[in-house]
Amino acid sequence: LDTIFPTAPPIELIPVSEAELAKLDLLFLCLPHGVAAPIAAQAVAAGVRVVDLSADFRIADRDVYEQWYETEHPSPELLAQAVYGLTEFSRSQLGAASLVANPGCYPTSILIALQPVLAAGATTTTIIADAKSGVSGAGRAPRQHTHFVEVASNFSPYKIGRAHRHLPEMEQQLKKWQPAAPPLVFSPHLLPVPRGILATIYITLDSGWDEASVRALYAARYDAEPFVRILPRGELPSLAHANYTNRCILSLTFAGRTLILTSVIDNLIKGAAGQAVQNMNVMFGLDEATGLPV
Amino acid sequence: LDTIFPTAPPIELIPVSEAELAKLDLLFLCLPHGVAAPIAAQAVAAGVRVVDLSADFRIADRDVYEQWYETEHPSPELLAQAVYGLTEFSRSQLGAASLVANPGCYPTSILIALQPVLAAGATTTTIIADAKSGVSGAGRAPRQHTHFVEVASNFSPYKIGRAHRHLPEMEQQLKKWQPAAPPLVFSPHLLPVPRGILATIYITLDSGWDEASVRALYAARYDAEPFVRILPRGELPSLAHANYTNRCILSLTFAGRTLILTSVIDNLIKGAAGQAVQNMNVMFGLDEATGLPV
Amino acid sequence: LDTIFPTAPPIELIPVSEAELAKLDLLFLCLPHGVAAPIAAQAVAAGVRVVDLSADFRIADRDVYEQWYETEHPSPELLAQAVYGLTEFSRSQLGAASLVANPGCYPTSILIALQPVLAAGATTTTIIADAKSGVSGAGRAPRQHTHFVEVASNFSPYKIGRAHRHLPEMEQQLKKWQPAAPPLVFSPHLLPVPRGILATIYITLDSGWDEASVRALYAARYDAEPFVRILPRGELPSLAHANYTNRCILSLTFAGRTLILTSVIDNLIKGAAGQAVQNMNVMFGLDEATGLPV
Amino acid sequence: LDTIFPTAPPIELIPVSEAELAKLDLLFLCLPHGVAAPIAAQAVAAGVRVVDLSADFRIADRDVYEQWYETEHPSPELLAQAVYGLTEFSRSQLGAASLVANPGCYPTSILIALQPVLAAGATTTTIIADAKSGVSGAGRAPRQHTHFVEVASNFSPYKIGRAHRHLPEMEQQLKKWQPAAPPLVFSPHLLPVPRGILATIYITLDSGWDEASVRALYAARYDAEPFVRILPRGELPSLAHANYTNRCILSLTFAGRTLILTSVIDNLIKGAAGQAVQNMNVMFGLDEATGLPV
Repeated sequence: LDTIFPTAPPIELIPVSEAELAKLDLLFLCLPHGVAAPIAAQAVAAGVRVVDLSADFRIADRDVYEQWYETEHPSPELLAQAVYGLTEFSRSQLGAASLVANPGCYPTSILIALQPVLAAGATTTTIIADAKSGVSGAGRAPRQHTHFVEVASNFSPYKIGRAHRHLPEMEQQLKKWQPAAPPLVFSPHLLPVPRGILATIYITLDSGWDEASVRALYAARYDAEPFVRILPRGELPSLAHANYTNRCILSLTFAGRTLILTSVIDNLIKGAAGQAVQNMNVMFGLDEATGLPV
Repeated sequence: LDTIFPTAPPIELIPVSEAELAKLDLLFLCLPHGVAAPIAAQAVAAGVRVVDLSADFRIADRDVYEQWYETEHPSPELLAQAVYGLTEFSRSQLGAASLVANPGCYPTSILIALQPVLAAGATTTTIIADAKSGVSGAGRAPRQHTHFVEVASNFSPYKIGRAHRHLPEMEQQLKKWQPAAPPLVFSPHLLPVPRGILATIYITLDSGWDEASVRALYAARYDAEPFVRILPRGELPSLAHANYTNRCILSLTFAGRTLILTSVIDNLIKGAAGQAVQNMNVMFGLDEATGLPV
Repeated sequence: LDTIFPTAPPIELIPVSEAELAKLDLLFLCLPHGVAAPIAAQAVAAGVRVVDLSADFRIADRDVYEQWYETEHPSPELLAQAVYGLTEFSRSQLGAASLVANPGCYPTSILIALQPVLAAGATTTTIIADAKSGVSGAGRAPRQHTHFVEVASNFSPYKIGRAHRHLPEMEQQLKKWQPAAPPLVFSPHLLPVPRGILATIYITLDSGWDEASVRALYAARYDAEPFVRILPRGELPSLAHANYTNRCILSLTFAGRTLILTSVIDNLIKGAAGQAVQNMNVMFGLDEATGLPV
Repeated sequence: LDTIFPTAPPIELIPVSEAELAKLDLLFLCLPHGVAAPIAAQAVAAGVRVVDLSADFRIADRDVYEQWYETEHPSPELLAQAVYGLTEFSRSQLGAASLVANPGCYPTSILIALQPVLAAGATTTTIIADAKSGVSGAGRAPRQHTHFVEVASNFSPYKIGRAHRHLPEMEQQLKKWQPAAPPLVFSPHLLPVPRGILATIYITLDSGWDEASVRALYAARYDAEPFVRILPRGELPSLAHANYTNRCILSLTFAGRTLILTSVIDNLIKGAAGQAVQNMNVMFGLDEATGLPV
């Protein structure tokens, strides 16, 4: 670990099998999908609360999970009690949660952007999320497509349309907010940067909405949120607005009846470890920003 | 110039005012808009054919030009004879052209992608072009937003919606191909790479179209083109497919009724100097690929 | 400022002329050389202590300053009281200092690496410092050589040999530590990264020294330092070891009688603002790490 | 291969075992060390001339090879006939060569820089080569240290001093040119760029030499070379001077009695495939620049 984080203070690591679960208040699981669920089950059975950063408990419908992740679900009996930990929308459930499914990085950026307008019932025919992510989103294991020479000075779309595993996770939430939500077109792209996600989202509003009413919706929903910020008209966020923070920064731009939302997060913080800490803070009644750079 | 292109052979530069127009067959103009037009007028008057890389003759409607470029047009009398030099669609006019307006880089990538489906009359409500460009697209003059420290590890949308000067140039062509073309939503973004454009384009087709019929359209239009290539189903281009070449590489992906086109070009070659040479080749009856890496 | 640091909390800025000096305990000056000195003089006259981040008070000899910076020194009368603020070597003077000259970024990385072996009198014929810096070292103003397209995928030496302004600042200190110190050959290079300095330093030791005795020297000098760390044999630092921290990380490698030191710092922190805060902490009797990430 | 070089024309690949050696004039071997030698032996036995890009035949002394590469040499009987293919210094042997060992990338950049002054007998105590290479020098196979996130915004020394496998290859040549050549201190560093090597080389000259006489040496040796260029006084090369070409660009800077040479090449061209073609051209009596961008 010392070589991964050369500037961090040293930390003692032990195998999971040697961990004394009974002594823990909380277990963060940072494991691949399929590997996380059995350990989560063990912890929950031992009365330990869990924040799981894998995909294992994000999708409530076992069949959908098994289709997209091409594996049998290891612990389907836990699905019913898992809370989807998009913190801004889960607070009321987190206090009593035994098992929290920390959201994916793309879903975090896109769902926060879409919720107010979806929940308000603005009808639309298609939602398009054109998302761009830094390379840490592809994991730390070395692969051909994360080799420096393949990525540097390049830019690549991948699994565009309806092909990426984060799609069902997003549609599940969108349908909670608007049962008749239209299908999502989701186009991820690989940016030649280490970290950060910027999603540019297109949604065509029906004629009952204008810029003032939509801005009022977002202000009402997010002005009191510690980690969400709406930029004023004419300003657009870049990765630099959110990297190294737990923030999600949004902009709203209108092009005729099309609302363009841009949303940036740091995929490693608000899109992963930061949101896990944010969830922990709510679960244990701590100040929500404890340990998180604001 | 030796310091700009340290690996190039030396070249003798002279002021435009010392150039003997009468001795030229062709003048390439690589000047800012507003500066190019008067020199183009002088050359045309002297019987010299011109390929102008500025925006001065791209927009046929003088009022539209003056509104978007916020300046009086220096030579509106030449607009009627200017040929819009998107080579693949201008060959019949280039042979006799005295003045060719070389297209902008974004329009080149987006128009080539859209022409077949637009010209075939596929109706749609909105066209969305989410485009990403390398930094050389912003010009060579040093500015704050092109400083290395601002760009590296960052990614920024700018002038999204209906705010970028390339919008009227694109809509002018789209309306030629489909008079009832819907408005274009155009979202440019700045990539932390030196060169290359990748545009991800979303267009919702009416129910008369399916993947087979759309692929047939593109094959019919582009299979014989030396510089346009359609990737097979399931493959997506990255900047590396087109950089350092005069090629435009396209992919077609279907997500329900939404057709997703991705289009890549090198903004400095097919998006500028390469297409200028391609136009010259057609103007003078040369092989269209003369001097261009295939 | 909000656009420079979009993630920082807002800050109110006022012109220097409106600052009420009498109310200040300390003034940090972040101005170009030549501009800083007169304001420092004003502050010192008003009894305000100053940490100056410019080059104006780093060089004790006015003539040397004027030769290298090609300008008349604006406030030579203050040179005698200025303390050179390489914190690890200035603590005894900082407590009473009215004016502290914060060192340059290259000198910080190189001087910390060289001090123990120089002060111990290891004779040598030449010292070579081959240093590589991120682009923020060149300042924020946009210039041709900091344009993203010039820097990305490139790497450039500049002002190598005995031509860079940081040379006299370094030789002044080296001669304090070893009056017969040999001349320094200093070769700066521009790295395509936003921040960080790595210096690779070559010094040939006389036969009285071996690895054990040199390592003992460095351990004795630095083991108690909060911001300096010597890596164990066989480990080498990279920029990632020091970036975003106030640390200087050193390695020692022996190749025959040549000692190779590598030294990394973050040029914006230990090489500038962080060391300024470190100096302030010592000046005011605070814990030296107050406000500084360890 | 189509996915590695998406812009290249398609090429048919066959297994080595199916190649009909008898039909070949020349075999380029681009294989790991240890794997190349047996195939080279087979080809040479079949009368096919070979340019081998591995390390197998670069080091004439079998023991030195086996010590540095930690493997038994597969074909030591061929070592005597192998020609070290640093083209500028091997032309007289290449015409009749059956087996050419294409030099390593670092050695190419450093040896070309050092030869004139070494061969002229300038005595010195140590030679220091501080070299910086792009990531393609580390090979195409994905490894942790070539992962984009490890490399981007970072810069790392590795195997510095007398630890890198290119050291014996370089010292072998230096001793041919000056039997009493001093030991070489060689410090490689990994640059966050895809390609290119820049070596900064320090050599202390004895008092018989000055700038004029050294410049005369280099001019005499290289002015007629098609791929070597000496920059005029005051100019320094960057990677952009040599990338995408077969050139080696040198600068000479004096700092007292220390001569600083900077040398740049493209590690993939002059440091590998380009020099292999250059060697082929000489072997077969072709124009030396055939197929190589000048």
